[in-house]
Amino acid sequence: MKNTYQRLTLVIILSTVCLSGYTQNANQEKQAILAQARAFSQAFMDKNTDKIMDIYTKDASIFPNRRKIMSDREAIRKYWSFNPKVKNLHHKLMPEKVEIVGNTAYDYGYYEGTTEYNGRQNNFRGKYVVVWKKTGGVWKMYLDIWNSVQMKKK
Amino acid sequence: MKNTYQRLTLVIILSTVCLSGYTQNANQEKQAILAQARAFSQAFMDKNTDKIMDIYTKDASIFPNRRKIMSDREAIRKYWSFNPKVKNLHHKLMPEKVEIVGNTAYDYGYYEGTTEYNGRQNNFRGKYVVVWKKTGGVWKMYLDIWNSVQMKKK
Repeated sequence: MKNTYQRLTLVIILSTVCLSGYTQNANQEKQAILAQARAFSQAFMDKNTDKIMDIYTKDASIFPNRRKIMSDREAIRKYWSFNPKVKNLHHKLMPEKVEIVGNTAYDYGYYEGTTEYNGRQNNFRGKYVVVWKKTGGVWKMYLDIWNSVQMKKK
Repeated sequence: MKNTYQRLTLVIILSTVCLSGYTQNANQEKQAILAQARAFSQAFMDKNTDKIMDIYTKDASIFPNRRKIMSDREAIRKYWSFNPKVKNLHHKLMPEKVEIVGNTAYDYGYYEGTTEYNGRQNNFRGKYVVVWKKTGGVWKMYLDIWNSVQMKKK
């Protein structure tokens, strides 16, 4: 009888461990992802390419409009390199939903930003889907795709 | 000693069950997703809006370029409705990678297609990221985002 009880306890413990991969600290994980998203915007505004690269996994792919899929890390670094003449950058992500499945997550939402070049302001606005992976305890972007949302004409 | 052995066996069995959610029939699941991707292309070529809608989850969102995120099912249906004058449609998906995490999956790759309107051919080419969910035993698209790849000028 004792053994049956012990085994049942073991089954319950293991089942809980099994499920906890999905549910444990879900909100904490979500906050960690949102913090990384904000860190990306800050790195963009700081023109900090190294920091941006640190928010992508080593095997990340990005999907800029009109270009082929970029999976080469140096190509991604070049894409996120900033012209020294570009200034007064603004960048903001507005996540609509974050969902976590184990060590993978995805989120989607809107983004908006501004760059200024030779005194001329460029405003952009769009929507994105990001697939995240938790690697070495840190959430990083694995797939990053976006496209525009039409700006209202002034 | 026998009990220790039995308990160890139980741990191994439960651990295997626990992990199998990720790995069991992975290739079979991948093939099911790719079959749905081909079914989407076929439905596009058949101008079969009902079939396209059946490949999206009830709570799907699509991210067409220049538009806001579309989560309303009737809006998605309208987006994928075809002008009767459009004919000779071609559509092909070229998946680069499919990854499955439990009942969620994502894939990305390229697509290409053609439409013809009033004798004028329109060729399009792009790349996509899709987040899939297995619902009622069937893989369906939950998030569908794409953008263009520049066509070579002739």
